Amino acid sequence: MGFRPRGLLLDMDGVLYHGSRLLPHARRFLEATAHLPRVFVTNNPIRTPVEVADHLAALGLPRSDPADVLTSGVATARWLARERPGFRFFAVGADGLHRVLAEHGTEDAENAEFVVVGEGPGLDYDTLSRGIDLIRNGATLVSTNPDPSVDAVVAGRHRVLPGGGALVAPFEVATGLRATTIGKPEPLLFVMALERLGLSAAECVMVGDRPDTDIAGAARVGLRCALVRTGRFLPGASWPAGEPPPDWDVPDLRSLLLRWWRDGVLEQR
Amino acid sequence: MGFRPRGLLLDMDGVLYHGSRLLPHARRFLEATAHLPRVFVTNNPIRTPVEVADHLAALGLPRSDPADVLTSGVATARWLARERPGFRFFAVGADGLHRVLAEHGTEDAENAEFVVVGEGPGLDYDTLSRGIDLIRNGATLVSTNPDPSVDAVVAGRHRVLPGGGALVAPFEVATGLRATTIGKPEPLLFVMALERLGLSAAECVMVGDRPDTDIAGAARVGLRCALVRTGRFLPGASWPAGEPPPDWDVPDLRSLLLRWWRDGVLEQR
Repeated sequence: MGFRPRGLLLDMDGVLYHGSRLLPHARRFLEATAHLPRVFVTNNPIRTPVEVADHLAALGLPRSDPADVLTSGVATARWLARERPGFRFFAVGADGLHRVLAEHGTEDAENAEFVVVGEGPGLDYDTLSRGIDLIRNGATLVSTNPDPSVDAVVAGRHRVLPGGGALVAPFEVATGLRATTIGKPEPLLFVMALERLGLSAAECVMVGDRPDTDIAGAARVGLRCALVRTGRFLPGASWPAGEPPPDWDVPDLRSLLLRWWRDGVLEQR
Repeated sequence: MGFRPRGLLLDMDGVLYHGSRLLPHARRFLEATAHLPRVFVTNNPIRTPVEVADHLAALGLPRSDPADVLTSGVATARWLARERPGFRFFAVGADGLHRVLAEHGTEDAENAEFVVVGEGPGLDYDTLSRGIDLIRNGATLVSTNPDPSVDAVVAGRHRVLPGGGALVAPFEVATGLRATTIGKPEPLLFVMALERLGLSAAECVMVGDRPDTDIAGAARVGLRCALVRTGRFLPGASWPAGEPPPDWDVPDLRSLLLRWWRDGVLEQR
């Protein structure tokens, strides 16, 4: 018998939805895999898990348990709590990032042990200067996610917004130090998702839309992975040289279901 | 007869002053070299030439002609005017940068042909996102200066502030493009200073305090150069591997005068 996954890791933006637009077949895919425990993993630290669960429900998808949502913000907060219980932090990013971090640590712009930079509004000359000061005084620079840019839909128009990798760059350049990075393709987000599932990498599949983060990162921790070309990486685009190819490379979630049913990866129910 | 310079290029911060503190021997050095035409060159685009001349005078130095002050902001404005007369720009930086650019071009956040990023306050999530948009629509990314960080004295305390290289980094990461850089060690600021003097590189000396920008850049365009260790690079620090050594490496301007008098580079008056 071939491979049968016991759990799924699912990226969301570009896989299940685009901004506020549900992608075709997302509901069907979630229903057809409902018997498999799953974790929704995202490099986007802007929303809290509850907000993500609300967003999925608002799009018409089955309501998810917020505990099954692992954002890079949550993973960062958990990692910092493990590294230093009761940690003090200075965050540069969206409100959601501040709130998620504050569940495990204390915001302290004077004596922070960690400068956490994440996606969303928050960076300006003052926060940058303050962060540089703290890092020079010994704080560790942490980046929620390394994406250079992110796609967004703002007022009905496609926008390219700065990603976590862009927002942390000025801190890195000014201090000459590299940030500790939590999100995909770094291993930590995947490892924490597997912990939540209680499964090994060999037992699970990661479904994502980005070769550089989803697929490269999943392959690095030994996960099988499926690429759907409904997000950043479009049908017809040639595979980036040097990146490991995915186990499945399909136009969309419907094609993935058909392939999995055909090959016995998934039993048709 | 040995080398006798016909003109000088002088960095200011770390050479003549530190923030609002005049450095010893600066006045003496300017007096002893008063017969040589000179250009004050600085990577700092925050002040306008008039403001720089005022600052030098306020420190007790001889009043300089603002036309002899070449900031990276002025050099950027002149370069853009040559590239595209009447250029439209979107600037991210201090007020002084906006004003200097507006002397040659027109600020236009909707249809800018150049996104100019310079030192000082100005960067935030909105300006970054707007700049990314403009660059994606064809605007050229320009950086006034590449310094990763700059030393400053704020409220009597030494601070390390983000430099032009740090502030342009998020634009570069988000777009995947490299900025055109005007300031030291790139050649343009030096070349424009030599144009102002009407002299060749072989006839002039650059005096600066930073191996990575002042000395490396001066050597690249064929200038002789003198390093004073009164700024970022302190006495006892070992020369960075791979950087060309300066022609003179002295603790301060007094030592430079003594060396130049002794070796006949400068006639004692």
